[in-house]
Amino acid sequence: MGTSTRERIVDASAILLRRQGYAATGVKQIVAEAEAPFSSLYHFFPGGKDELTAAAIRSSGRIFQELVEAVFDAAPDVLSGVRDCFAGAAETLRQTGYADACPIATVALEVASTNELLRQATAEVFDSWIAAATERFLAAGIPETSARELAITTITSLEGGFVLSRALRSTEPLAVAGAAVASAVAAAFPD
Amino acid sequence: MGTSTRERIVDASAILLRRQGYAATGVKQIVAEAEAPFSSLYHFFPGGKDELTAAAIRSSGRIFQELVEAVFDAAPDVLSGVRDCFAGAAETLRQTGYADACPIATVALEVASTNELLRQATAEVFDSWIAAATERFLAAGIPETSARELAITTITSLEGGFVLSRALRSTEPLAVAGAAVASAVAAAFPD
Repeated sequence: MGTSTRERIVDASAILLRRQGYAATGVKQIVAEAEAPFSSLYHFFPGGKDELTAAAIRSSGRIFQELVEAVFDAAPDVLSGVRDCFAGAAETLRQTGYADACPIATVALEVASTNELLRQATAEVFDSWIAAATERFLAAGIPETSARELAITTITSLEGGFVLSRALRSTEPLAVAGAAVASAVAAAFPD
Repeated sequence: MGTSTRERIVDASAILLRRQGYAATGVKQIVAEAEAPFSSLYHFFPGGKDELTAAAIRSSGRIFQELVEAVFDAAPDVLSGVRDCFAGAAETLRQTGYADACPIATVALEVASTNELLRQATAEVFDSWIAAATERFLAAGIPETSARELAITTITSLEGGFVLSRALRSTEPLAVAGAAVASAVAAAFPD
């Protein structure tokens, strides 16, 4: 069993966790989706479902961050980057029938009060996103007093937009949340 | 079996759904928490877990809305009402060990792509919250062009703040999100 089997298992887990959450996702479904032998799951993840879920949370958190960083890198400035992120998230939602939004939010809410190991994995991902967004706002010339707050506002707005847009099957909440963040970012630049 | 048994079942469901989500909550746990006979669940909810979950979503959505409306009613103005809502939500989170946040968000994310009946129940609740907040902003003198957007911004910010605050076990995301909403509301009043 090579690295690719492990990767297929982690990737299949990440997709199932994103679309249906932690409790609904069983190890049998994961190995079936990954087209991997059942024994390989416990070979790569002796801790079973929880160890695999923690790995999937960290992996999909990193992939999502890289995706967002690429959107910012391609934008002419940080304000366009914010707008492009929300627009891209809305377009992905629409194209996937409102299925693909934040890869870890469903699990984060499920485990926050019930599974400390997995809660910590989601917290690490959110901390990493906040740090990366803060750095980006600082690099764009936004003062230190505002950069972290704007980073948190950006991520909470994206997460809340995802909750309402998925439930309502409408991109309106994400669009409105994105416009509010863009206004806050524009206002944060020194005169 | 009187109304109170039905209410105990709905209330117990609502608490379990809020804290651990839909997939993790079984009917046996619900009747145990409700101290109700197992048969009473199917007496009151012939459709079983899904019919009960839909009732619990609508019930807890209504109770949460009444709570928020009471906070706004007690505030001297709508801007103070917004600040009090986010402060009250943060205080409740802290007091409950970061367990009690939005009563329907966990379920909303779990079912958005997997259970159309329950997705519709969550959509009804969010639509009702948006309508109530829009009315309140309009009544406070905020122009019609801004009132709905501010209502959506308020609710997405609260939801996103809940996701990050629960995961990070910190009230910072809710506080930052609340301050951003307060700034947006303050800026929306006509000069």
